[in-house]
Amino acid sequence: MIRVIGIDPGLRNLGWGVIDVSGSRIAHVANGICHSEGDDLAMRLLSLHGQLTRVLSTYRPGTAAVEQTFVNKDGAGTLKLGQARGIAMLVPAQFGLTVGEYAPNKVKKTVVGVGHADKGQVAHMVRMQMPGIEIAGPDAADALAIAICHAHHGGASTLAQAVARAQA
Amino acid sequence: MIRVIGIDPGLRNLGWGVIDVSGSRIAHVANGICHSEGDDLAMRLLSLHGQLTRVLSTYRPGTAAVEQTFVNKDGAGTLKLGQARGIAMLVPAQFGLTVGEYAPNKVKKTVVGVGHADKGQVAHMVRMQMPGIEIAGPDAADALAIAICHAHHGGASTLAQAVARAQA
Repeated sequence: MIRVIGIDPGLRNLGWGVIDVSGSRIAHVANGICHSEGDDLAMRLLSLHGQLTRVLSTYRPGTAAVEQTFVNKDGAGTLKLGQARGIAMLVPAQFGLTVGEYAPNKVKKTVVGVGHADKGQVAHMVRMQMPGIEIAGPDAADALAIAICHAHHGGASTLAQAVARAQA
Repeated sequence: MIRVIGIDPGLRNLGWGVIDVSGSRIAHVANGICHSEGDDLAMRLLSLHGQLTRVLSTYRPGTAAVEQTFVNKDGAGTLKLGQARGIAMLVPAQFGLTVGEYAPNKVKKTVVGVGHADKGQVAHMVRMQMPGIEIAGPDAADALAIAICHAHHGGASTLAQAVARAQA
């Protein structure tokens, strides 16, 4: 059994989802959204870092995955996302985890079957795979989808490393 | 006297410069460049975080400033810069510092007198203000310029807060 955390980075809302994977079976553990607090950027990043650190301390995943994306429309928005994504990548690395990166289309194709699915379809298919779960919001649904994608595509080496580390 | 750290964020090379400011007098303390190491993005961000944390632990600045910029040409480059910038903002915040942000033109206008100065002019004027110093490279010169800019424009409130915190 390997525990996987998926993270959907955003400066305002950072979604996270934790699942347990055993062969082809997946089980929901927890999901949520970190809302950044603070008047300025540095305080908001510090807030995200603290909240995400608490999530990893609580659930102790063995491997992590983060959505690989960039905003095309404006540089300022892309920079903001990048700053949040820096925190989303840093925290699992601070826990000694490898961090997988998946393009949004790959996540959707894995979970929904097509690369152009909308957020509603993603949440629907996440619920189908883990019936009865409560999802904190669209960002948390996306994070669970990223975790599911990592469970499918993480590859034997990444997961084996993580398991070996967990057993060390 | 207030100690100021300026940071020029970059994923490959992150410049930093520390100066002591007393009224209108400034004195060089140290400067350098953090080179990110590691095969993947998460490891490189972890490496930058560790190196910058050691710089702040060593020199214990009372306030910090980071260049406020974005790459316009491509989203991927902007996202990379954003991720490094997230670390550059986070580390001083983890030390309880306020983090000022200055646009490149403001930094150049303050240090060189014009907003469109090139890197060579910036390094020259930094050396003029702190004769005899050794500068680790262009990114470190930019970081020192950001620190000088923050010394000029940080504002009484920011610096007074920092001094009060340093004395608490």
